[in-house]
Amino acid sequence: MSEDCIAAILPAVNGSTEAATILCSQFSDYETTQSQISGVLVGVNTLYLVSCGALVFVMHAGFAMLCAGAIRSKNTMNILLQTVMDAAVSAIAFYLLGYGFAYGVGANPNGFIGDALFALSRWKNHNFNGGDFDYYTTADPDGLGWQNWFFQWAFAATATTIPAGAVAERLNFNAYLIYSFFISAFVYPVVAHWVWAAEGWLGFARYAGYSHLFRSGMIDFAGSGVVHMTGGLAGLAGCIMVGPRMGRFDSNGNPVEMPGHSATLVVLGTVLLWFGWYGFNPGSQLIITSIKASAVVGRSAVTTTLAGGAGCLSCLLTAFLRHKAWDLVAGCNGALVGFVTVTAMAHVVEPWAAIIAGFTGGWVFDAVCVLFLKLRIDDPLSAAPMHAFCGAWGVFFTGLLAKREYICQSYGRSCDADQYIANGLFYGGDGRLLASQVVGIISIFAWVFGLMSLLFGSLKMVKLLRISAEEEQAGLDVSKHGGSAYNYDHGLGKPEKATAQGL
Amino acid sequence: MSEDCIAAILPAVNGSTEAATILCSQFSDYETTQSQISGVLVGVNTLYLVSCGALVFVMHAGFAMLCAGAIRSKNTMNILLQTVMDAAVSAIAFYLLGYGFAYGVGANPNGFIGDALFALSRWKNHNFNGGDFDYYTTADPDGLGWQNWFFQWAFAATATTIPAGAVAERLNFNAYLIYSFFISAFVYPVVAHWVWAAEGWLGFARYAGYSHLFRSGMIDFAGSGVVHMTGGLAGLAGCIMVGPRMGRFDSNGNPVEMPGHSATLVVLGTVLLWFGWYGFNPGSQLIITSIKASAVVGRSAVTTTLAGGAGCLSCLLTAFLRHKAWDLVAGCNGALVGFVTVTAMAHVVEPWAAIIAGFTGGWVFDAVCVLFLKLRIDDPLSAAPMHAFCGAWGVFFTGLLAKREYICQSYGRSCDADQYIANGLFYGGDGRLLASQVVGIISIFAWVFGLMSLLFGSLKMVKLLRISAEEEQAGLDVSKHGGSAYNYDHGLGKPEKATAQGL
Amino acid sequence: MSEDCIAAILPAVNGSTEAATILCSQFSDYETTQSQISGVLVGVNTLYLVSCGALVFVMHAGFAMLCAGAIRSKNTMNILLQTVMDAAVSAIAFYLLGYGFAYGVGANPNGFIGDALFALSRWKNHNFNGGDFDYYTTADPDGLGWQNWFFQWAFAATATTIPAGAVAERLNFNAYLIYSFFISAFVYPVVAHWVWAAEGWLGFARYAGYSHLFRSGMIDFAGSGVVHMTGGLAGLAGCIMVGPRMGRFDSNGNPVEMPGHSATLVVLGTVLLWFGWYGFNPGSQLIITSIKASAVVGRSAVTTTLAGGAGCLSCLLTAFLRHKAWDLVAGCNGALVGFVTVTAMAHVVEPWAAIIAGFTGGWVFDAVCVLFLKLRIDDPLSAAPMHAFCGAWGVFFTGLLAKREYICQSYGRSCDADQYIANGLFYGGDGRLLASQVVGIISIFAWVFGLMSLLFGSLKMVKLLRISAEEEQAGLDVSKHGGSAYNYDHGLGKPEKATAQGL
Repeated sequence: MSEDCIAAILPAVNGSTEAATILCSQFSDYETTQSQISGVLVGVNTLYLVSCGALVFVMHAGFAMLCAGAIRSKNTMNILLQTVMDAAVSAIAFYLLGYGFAYGVGANPNGFIGDALFALSRWKNHNFNGGDFDYYTTADPDGLGWQNWFFQWAFAATATTIPAGAVAERLNFNAYLIYSFFISAFVYPVVAHWVWAAEGWLGFARYAGYSHLFRSGMIDFAGSGVVHMTGGLAGLAGCIMVGPRMGRFDSNGNPVEMPGHSATLVVLGTVLLWFGWYGFNPGSQLIITSIKASAVVGRSAVTTTLAGGAGCLSCLLTAFLRHKAWDLVAGCNGALVGFVTVTAMAHVVEPWAAIIAGFTGGWVFDAVCVLFLKLRIDDPLSAAPMHAFCGAWGVFFTGLLAKREYICQSYGRSCDADQYIANGLFYGGDGRLLASQVVGIISIFAWVFGLMSLLFGSLKMVKLLRISAEEEQAGLDVSKHGGSAYNYDHGLGKPEKATAQGL
Repeated sequence: MSEDCIAAILPAVNGSTEAATILCSQFSDYETTQSQISGVLVGVNTLYLVSCGALVFVMHAGFAMLCAGAIRSKNTMNILLQTVMDAAVSAIAFYLLGYGFAYGVGANPNGFIGDALFALSRWKNHNFNGGDFDYYTTADPDGLGWQNWFFQWAFAATATTIPAGAVAERLNFNAYLIYSFFISAFVYPVVAHWVWAAEGWLGFARYAGYSHLFRSGMIDFAGSGVVHMTGGLAGLAGCIMVGPRMGRFDSNGNPVEMPGHSATLVVLGTVLLWFGWYGFNPGSQLIITSIKASAVVGRSAVTTTLAGGAGCLSCLLTAFLRHKAWDLVAGCNGALVGFVTVTAMAHVVEPWAAIIAGFTGGWVFDAVCVLFLKLRIDDPLSAAPMHAFCGAWGVFFTGLLAKREYICQSYGRSCDADQYIANGLFYGGDGRLLASQVVGIISIFAWVFGLMSLLFGSLKMVKLLRISAEEEQAGLDVSKHGGSAYNYDHGLGKPEKATAQGL
Repeated sequence: MSEDCIAAILPAVNGSTEAATILCSQFSDYETTQSQISGVLVGVNTLYLVSCGALVFVMHAGFAMLCAGAIRSKNTMNILLQTVMDAAVSAIAFYLLGYGFAYGVGANPNGFIGDALFALSRWKNHNFNGGDFDYYTTADPDGLGWQNWFFQWAFAATATTIPAGAVAERLNFNAYLIYSFFISAFVYPVVAHWVWAAEGWLGFARYAGYSHLFRSGMIDFAGSGVVHMTGGLAGLAGCIMVGPRMGRFDSNGNPVEMPGHSATLVVLGTVLLWFGWYGFNPGSQLIITSIKASAVVGRSAVTTTLAGGAGCLSCLLTAFLRHKAWDLVAGCNGALVGFVTVTAMAHVVEPWAAIIAGFTGGWVFDAVCVLFLKLRIDDPLSAAPMHAFCGAWGVFFTGLLAKREYICQSYGRSCDADQYIANGLFYGGDGRLLASQVVGIISIFAWVFGLMSLLFGSLKMVKLLRISAEEEQAGLDVSKHGGSAYNYDHGLGKPEKATAQGL
């Protein structure tokens, strides 16, 4: 190649081989540099997706501890197994079907559902060819799909595990297995396709070329709607269908407290979730190798922190006004409420707006919790108020205070060139964004709550949904999982039946 | 642009359009490359700061578990809530005021306190314009402040939560709330400004242009002084003012053991803190995109590991010599002591020096713990011996064994060009660095211990500092937080009052 | 330099200073770019190694919780201290000796053991000069060894801590201390040298130049053999030598269940291990700054996830068929079995192959557990079945389904140019790879099981291996560690002796 270059340059430099050599060696070095930079671009984005994906996964540790701590000890093993199972089942289901339904672009690309990439076949046809992801096409065309599958799976696993808390302490484990596969293979991926796939009918347009809902589309950065509403609404359908726990409401319909068995586990779970959220939100820009993308990633970390802090203080305060006690679990729930709320908007709001979102999210949560008790809906972890309702609140709020400059920064659009780009209503937007958000909320509600009610309703009809009263009284662990979660000696209880094979 | 280029080159290449085109297309490609590299530089540093910041945050999980495990179960919810609250309150306080006091550069930049950036307004005026951070000024001037706020907040939150252990089991929760806001909004940020802001009067000079304390300034990489002494001294002021727990010393003044309720939680907390320290120290170089900075980051990970290991073995050995038992909590405390000690110097010492620092840190810790018992100071978590005294030991030790070449490597200075750059005393430094370290220790002590004594003293005067004897006897959880942390059924105790709303 | 450039170019451009200046300023800018890219390359790889190393370290939190939860509460502090100690001892031992034995290239480089770099002296002589790591030699020649030591230490610490579970509840703590130093300073590093050092006689050839075992060498990406077999076989030797726990088998030789004391801790440990495995496997490519390396990293995250999911479901199913109960600990063990199995091959197998590996790994685990009970081998954590046998299964399986294209991608070889590169047997490989894998399994078994049997046998002879029957009855915590791990008040037990100094 160097000789070709010298030959081409030679006439232009008066036949001076020395000069041609100087120039051509520069060009040759430069080719090396170009190759290095291709490598480093993909390397950085890989590290970004894999490390953020791992952080999203650690939320499973958070959910497991939170759920375990917040229920009675006699059902601990049951809920822990559900969480572990959710990760395992969702991995297989998302590999076989889910990822394809969410992001596959096959023979008939459409706005409703993906139609390729099942079992990770046919890498080339996925959504990320072209656009910002052009290095996907160089050298090794199937180079980057892996990272993306991993990151997206971690989200699917999160949506899958959210409902465990809502149906805790009385759902049949076999029913949970069926549910777990169904949501991660089909229900969640379809929502993800709507909002996050390039062809999706509902999501915000990353590129000007697409015609979209109200010329805007719904903004849902990391999934207040896609992940949290989906999980929360599945939980809602489940806890309505399965009915309250025995003794949760007395004969007059008044709620009877059923305290969780370990506040320490609740806090451990909350802080691990907080930790994982720094992958969940900052990771959702998907690409970090530009100045604009980096600003979005950084801002997401800031707004996430502030919304969580504000939510925590909001719920603490409300609980103090109610009970005159500083309620630890209220504070923990509040932080999570803040995160759920800001997840849709972490990339496009100012810090003060994130604080407002988190603080008001606390009110939404509290109001829905009160309403649930009035309606005698028993959601042991308050998963539906938190994920479904505060998720919806986050999606809605985004329509109010999303900032145009930040939207352009995050979605690779040009605010100067394109005056139709949406803006939050309070910034003088014309309501197109807010309308998209509302359509999104309604659509996700209809899809998820409808399908999941059908599933749980069917299971109820064939009497697979709920354990027997005797089993519930004894606890799921003894009834279905062969023992008790805790076996302290030394005056803390006596060893009961084995918890595990070989232990 | 390409046509301009061709026109400019054309005469030089004998009017050969072909040659001009070859050259100009190279230049044009090269502009793309330059833009890509700007993006990747900021991307890598963003990923570095955000992931290290998340690791620093996970130390909250560590502190929560460590503190909970090391106290009696009847006060568990209280201390857990303090940790969660510290994260929430410090987020809001550091947003509103703290970051501005620490790093804001406004109309009157000075060595004592920052004066801009309150509520994250006026991004351009922060400390990181110029110097290594020059890509901040390209394209998107407010592009990188976000990441920095997030990373710095995580440190503020750590300093805020350290004292919780020292005042555990008897402090009024309302007093804690006030303390938490005060330290994260004002006390800590001022120390951070002194040492880490470019204008700070105390810190080591990153650029030769500044005139600094003893022509050196204090070296405190990740905050043995700024974070740990600040937190530890606040704890010391608190535990002296609030007095020992009831029954901690018998009528003869001899200490009565008050064992923590779960060694498992102590270990979990310790290992999570160890994990988080890999963000705390290696993250503190702030920039990772150069060969020198990368060496500093790598070395910090190594010295941190070795100091923690050495501290662990040191305290284990001391405890074994004292009690003839292998004391688990001593080993855990020892590892943390090693980390606290090495935090000031992780970037500028040899591995063997880190081992000595950690090992001797264990002796400092043990000696101060013994002294505290003699003085009847009751610090349930030994937070002051660990963070205040071993932090000070780390700052001092840095003055002895910091290595000139490593200082230049870390602070972007040229050892060849500038013979005034400090060196550790044992490497033949002339004592300027050691003197700076001593001034730093004294100044931080005076500022933090003085202000916090004032705060806790005032709260004591208005009888807001300590709970009543009845409440202390019953435990804070029942008295103030509406129940007990643990509610095991199945022979492990009976459910008591609710731990949380809706659970 | 710019003037030199202009002078050189000038004659070639007809003496046009303007043209020469244009060209030379481009070249000058370009030098800056080259320097930037050198910095960013090393920065990204540093961030990659340090963050993955931290993830590997967090597996210590996982092991600690898993081990604690799976044994009886009276020995909790003992096993927790072993885990913490393993991290501390291995840090010092790997610094002083281990890293040198593994990767040091001194005066007599050989395939069996390293001979330099003890106490991190003589950085230049380590394995990573040349090859992909050429930026090591620029500017700061000792720039990158730090990161590598940290990452490799985290693996050594993992291998060291695996056996704790196998010898739990009856091993003398002093014996454990000796073991811990011996394995991390010598036994493990030698195996690492064989397989992972460039001169190692056993490992797969990264560069075509080396002559290797069967012209192939053993493929063990992240250490199914090097780490897990080593740890598991050490555990096997230990638990055979020390004998079963008192009462583990009745007078007829039938096993008596000894359930662990907390299923919650088992799950917490499992999920933290799962989390950490995303550093363990994806980190093991060591370099991430190329398109090929990034694909390997991404694929490793995917195959790891799928193998863990498949292993979890496999063991759950087996346990259900045996006991008609959904066994939580079986599910947890199954996930870990999947990870152990895929660790050798995560970089070179298709996703479906990873699923098969994890699923069949579950059968291997179950079969070996059954066999152990028949042989009256008491391994409380099933550490040997999991790490030694499933590790071996993973190494073997790699010989069946490793894919040639992926091998080339991962090891920097050219499949086009070199037809001798190995392939899995089922892909039409000629068995050279499989033969290498089998030799690897046998060699690691002989080395580790031989040496560790010698060590534990010697300790047994001098009566240092096992605690007395009285101590075992009372529990190690009371006997050797000065108290009990748990001291709940409020009806959950009464405070016993202190768990720790100063608490």
